[in-house]
Amino acid sequence: MTQTPECPLCAAAGGILVHRGEKLRVIRVEDADFPAFYRVIWNAHVTELSDLAPADRAELLNEVVRVERVLRTRLQPTKINLASLGNMVPHLHWHVIARFAWDSHFPEPVWGTRQREVAPQAAQRLPVGLPQLDALVRSDNQLSCT
Amino acid sequence: MTQTPECPLCAAAGGILVHRGEKLRVIRVEDADFPAFYRVIWNAHVTELSDLAPADRAELLNEVVRVERVLRTRLQPTKINLASLGNMVPHLHWHVIARFAWDSHFPEPVWGTRQREVAPQAAQRLPVGLPQLDALVRSDNQLSCT
Repeated sequence: MTQTPECPLCAAAGGILVHRGEKLRVIRVEDADFPAFYRVIWNAHVTELSDLAPADRAELLNEVVRVERVLRTRLQPTKINLASLGNMVPHLHWHVIARFAWDSHFPEPVWGTRQREVAPQAAQRLPVGLPQLDALVRSDNQLSCT
Repeated sequence: MTQTPECPLCAAAGGILVHRGEKLRVIRVEDADFPAFYRVIWNAHVTELSDLAPADRAELLNEVVRVERVLRTRLQPTKINLASLGNMVPHLHWHVIARFAWDSHFPEPVWGTRQREVAPQAAQRLPVGLPQLDALVRSDNQLSCT
């Protein structure tokens, strides 16, 4: 697999590892403001979506949609936010974030201006605890998990 | 086609119309900081990517990749940014943005903190003029254009 030594997503999982497949993995980002924040990361060091062969691209995007569906079903968020930016870490990864009208930045993007302080902690407002949510994201996945 | 009267992306093209297909359209956003900023908009009022049937989803994402490829080939950007947020306008649309190390916000997201003023105007730094870029995005598309 192509790896780039100085790339943090080649060197480490990049968050709480929820699922690892042959070609991609799913991690949860530990973010107090956005607790239901997952990333689908392509394991090989690839920069842009269009670098992938069609079958690989489909596998990656199907996984993004799969995570989106788990979040929608279990959390009923106000909106799902999807993004592949990679300006700082140009290793192909997709943000899949459940957004809520009450969250710290809504309706701004998570990278925008804070709109409010959220108390109690955002994670406590979710209808499902994070370990259970991770398990749902994992168990919905038919590939093996390490 | 499902339309929602109060939705701005049901009521109007949403930018400079570059290509209109049966199911989707491509517009260019007029943004002085990010001149090579396109959106691929699903014509029907759908909220989330996972609401689309697999064939429709593939058509939409193939179009996103197609626009990405035109921007990469013609502009050699530092990075492509892709995002589907929709917090303010929950009508399925994808941002496809060519980012450059010299641009006003790089490496921050376009929704983040400005990093610098850009002069001369950003559009003048592109190797291709915007009308020509629009034409390249359009001509690379095999569907009819209106």
